[in-house]
Amino acid sequence: MKYIITIGREYGSGGRFIGRLLAEKLKIAFYDNELLTKAARESGLSEQIFKTYDEKKDSFLTAGIGLYSYDMSLGQKVFLAQFDAIRNIADTESCVIVGRCADYVLKDYPNVVNIFICAPLEDKIKRAVKYYGINENKAASILAKMDKKRKGYYNFYTDRDWGKARNYDLCINSKIGIEETVDAIYGYVVKLLKLDKNEE
Amino acid sequence: MKYIITIGREYGSGGRFIGRLLAEKLKIAFYDNELLTKAARESGLSEQIFKTYDEKKDSFLTAGIGLYSYDMSLGQKVFLAQFDAIRNIADTESCVIVGRCADYVLKDYPNVVNIFICAPLEDKIKRAVKYYGINENKAASILAKMDKKRKGYYNFYTDRDWGKARNYDLCINSKIGIEETVDAIYGYVVKLLKLDKNEE
Repeated sequence: MKYIITIGREYGSGGRFIGRLLAEKLKIAFYDNELLTKAARESGLSEQIFKTYDEKKDSFLTAGIGLYSYDMSLGQKVFLAQFDAIRNIADTESCVIVGRCADYVLKDYPNVVNIFICAPLEDKIKRAVKYYGINENKAASILAKMDKKRKGYYNFYTDRDWGKARNYDLCINSKIGIEETVDAIYGYVVKLLKLDKNEE
Repeated sequence: MKYIITIGREYGSGGRFIGRLLAEKLKIAFYDNELLTKAARESGLSEQIFKTYDEKKDSFLTAGIGLYSYDMSLGQKVFLAQFDAIRNIADTESCVIVGRCADYVLKDYPNVVNIFICAPLEDKIKRAVKYYGINENKAASILAKMDKKRKGYYNFYTDRDWGKARNYDLCINSKIGIEETVDAIYGYVVKLLKLDKNEE
């Protein structure tokens, strides 16, 4: 059976890493922002967009600032190419997709399980300092900005509220530990999709 | 170890029943709205409020309509008496508390696990028709009103957003089944609180 697990997450919650481990445990493919961009490019989607994207790489990176950036229309085009890539992937194989409003893009697909990961502020700060090299003193405000950006994108592209329980099948605080969070999501997915644990 | 599990829930999601089963599985006490009112009364809290509450029982029942009811101040007083009851209970014993903003009331207590239960609309309608005798044709609009009321109370009494993942440790869609939802919450709680499964 083909199925897709989408993961939304707060910045620094460990959501991307959790998604990768979950994909390994389920023995299915894994896609994050970078891999979606690669997939979109390799499938020949919107070649012109990625040409522009390469030329403006620096400004694309700052397009992270969001909807108010002068570069919005380019960022939007890349987003939309990624949306096409998400649909292509979902038509092809079982996978875990992190971010990119994948839950919304695939809302009419069968066997989609939507997960959201959050974490206590102190854990997110520690993770951001350790893995993203963010200055500890500025971490709290950077985290808030990153989540504001994610929320902004999500609410702009979808008719839903980012991080609202009703939009997801399972929202889990990773404070129980990364491995434990993976196990809990795994258990939920297996039950919901009635996967045969020996086969998937 | 003493611990408290609070459960917020969408109307018709099975949250109260899930809470009761979870309390049985953990062998701890269970409190819902009715039992909190009883507890508040028996502890001698705000005797005058409950005297008034008895006298105005009918209008109290309609106070469910919420913040715009003419009876708001009475409803508020009963709420506040329940808040005191929640703190008294939390000082005394491990338990599951359903509703009544218990997560917020106990925000400074140790060993509190906050759960939110939601469910697909069709499941909630079926449950409301079966257990609460609600007319099927009116069910969707009644469900929406009940959740609006819960959200209204929650957002009024707390500085949080009802049903937002960040406020809870685990938000779970009960579409995997009631027993399965109980098991999933049980597993999360045991891991988070490091309970000894043979002892709790």
